[in-house]
Amino acid sequence: MDKPSRLRIVIVAEVDEDQRTRLNTIAPGCDIHFLNKGSDLTEVIADADVVAGDVTPEELARAQKLKWVHSWAAGPNTQLFPDFVRHEAVLTCSKGNGAIPLAEHAMMMMLMLNRNAMRWAKAQSEGRWDRFVHDELAGKTVGIIGTGNSGTDLATKARAFHMKVLGLRRSMAIAPGFDTIYRNRDLHTFLRECDFVVVTAPLTLETKDMLGEKEFRLMKPSAFYICFSRGGIANDDALLRALSEGWIAGAGLDAHLVEPLPIDSPFWKLPNTIITPHNGATTDATGARGFSIFERNLDSFLHGKALTNIIDKQVGY
Amino acid sequence: MDKPSRLRIVIVAEVDEDQRTRLNTIAPGCDIHFLNKGSDLTEVIADADVVAGDVTPEELARAQKLKWVHSWAAGPNTQLFPDFVRHEAVLTCSKGNGAIPLAEHAMMMMLMLNRNAMRWAKAQSEGRWDRFVHDELAGKTVGIIGTGNSGTDLATKARAFHMKVLGLRRSMAIAPGFDTIYRNRDLHTFLRECDFVVVTAPLTLETKDMLGEKEFRLMKPSAFYICFSRGGIANDDALLRALSEGWIAGAGLDAHLVEPLPIDSPFWKLPNTIITPHNGATTDATGARGFSIFERNLDSFLHGKALTNIIDKQVGY
Repeated sequence: MDKPSRLRIVIVAEVDEDQRTRLNTIAPGCDIHFLNKGSDLTEVIADADVVAGDVTPEELARAQKLKWVHSWAAGPNTQLFPDFVRHEAVLTCSKGNGAIPLAEHAMMMMLMLNRNAMRWAKAQSEGRWDRFVHDELAGKTVGIIGTGNSGTDLATKARAFHMKVLGLRRSMAIAPGFDTIYRNRDLHTFLRECDFVVVTAPLTLETKDMLGEKEFRLMKPSAFYICFSRGGIANDDALLRALSEGWIAGAGLDAHLVEPLPIDSPFWKLPNTIITPHNGATTDATGARGFSIFERNLDSFLHGKALTNIIDKQVGY
Repeated sequence: MDKPSRLRIVIVAEVDEDQRTRLNTIAPGCDIHFLNKGSDLTEVIADADVVAGDVTPEELARAQKLKWVHSWAAGPNTQLFPDFVRHEAVLTCSKGNGAIPLAEHAMMMMLMLNRNAMRWAKAQSEGRWDRFVHDELAGKTVGIIGTGNSGTDLATKARAFHMKVLGLRRSMAIAPGFDTIYRNRDLHTFLRECDFVVVTAPLTLETKDMLGEKEFRLMKPSAFYICFSRGGIANDDALLRALSEGWIAGAGLDAHLVEPLPIDSPFWKLPNTIITPHNGATTDATGARGFSIFERNLDSFLHGKALTNIIDKQVGY
């Protein structure tokens, strides 16, 4: 049995030797438990001070000393169940870990939709030379909902594509890389301008269903909708009708309301839509960046300094 | 019969009303013939001073006053048959017209190859949630062969993707947007560095077959080859073996040695290769930009000023 004064840190992740060594250097004398991804915390949670990984309601009920939970997700909304929101433990997240690959994913989807890449893929599968006039991104307007890490990186990329870049955010604070910033209350004006609408915002009470029938109907019929943060920010029924009935031209969807997307979901079959399985940021570098965020926070935690990436549990991000 | 002093300009292109009006303003009093794309010039070539469009060997043989041919292509190598090379007429091209959409096409291919987009497309067609770890472009090195308009635009885009950007060119002249410039004689050193090799160079005696078995064998096995300028710069036999036998990881090919690519070409079937039908720059904006280049040159021609985009007929670009 550990002495009560010895800090217990539970790491639920695949950790390599270098990362283990670094953690032991950052937290000498601490009781560090390494568990595989998806492990049950029942046996270790009671004495845990820190958990890097998801904590279920059942596990939380057994926790006696829990002070800090670090989520490997950029948007840890599944951690925010009522008992955890009420709990005194601080929640930090790994936001920023996947910003770069997510912006890459969005650019890929924009390019594939803009030039109808799947038409070439079909022609290739048939050995058919199918040359056609397509569009280009240059001169188009992209509107990015959410001007955080991934939105800002995407803005830089879109400008290198000679696009006009609009941002939508809660406040008017400066957002470098954007041509114009709109506030949330100007959503409709913003949407009318866009050839591409890209959702990078977290799912919160404020963003849930922010794009419904009215919003999709006032977008340009030639506009494309891209979402790589969370499903549910667009209302799924409205989005499905928008795509089926031609209110907009198409979509690229990496984040979905229900995940995994059920095999009988009508979204799979939409000919104007690219579906990927919430997979845009699943790179080794994303994992490494998330781990670095935790390492820096652990060092701060042990030295009584402020943590970064703290989630406001009431607001949800 | 026109008076010999009246300049005859033959435009072989789909021309809209605005473009017609602008040409008449630039060249008042000239005899401007508008012909559809692909038209036979037999009836009009004898008295033509200027042709904007392709001139065949048979048509050239009938030309009596031809002073200038403007090609709608960025790389007018098909115009450079021996009789035309020997002819006194100046040749200009539309290079720069497709630089932006070609750079977009290359970025799309790099993204699709880097994150294995066709695996998602296959899963979508089967309604299957296939989540996998993929790569990201950030931190990778792209080597661009040819630092002209499209190469330079691609360099800017690649840097916005946090890539290291190398250029290969004949001279060491400054090329903005590139991290390092290599000379052609350092091709092998350059190739060993690259995660992506992108060919943007024209097809000339110097570039023909510049990438053969030796070159593909010394690239990284994880490297991708992209070509959107001309087939034949890579030797097709070597490229096919490189892709079939895993010397490199894959390719994105918009330009091909024989076009249209024959239905029985083995390139169509390569699972690690994206084939598009020399179609990367086929946008309305490319046509409009090519026409603007001709308009500016026509104005210069009529005022005795220097033309831009002149092809050195001996060198081939």
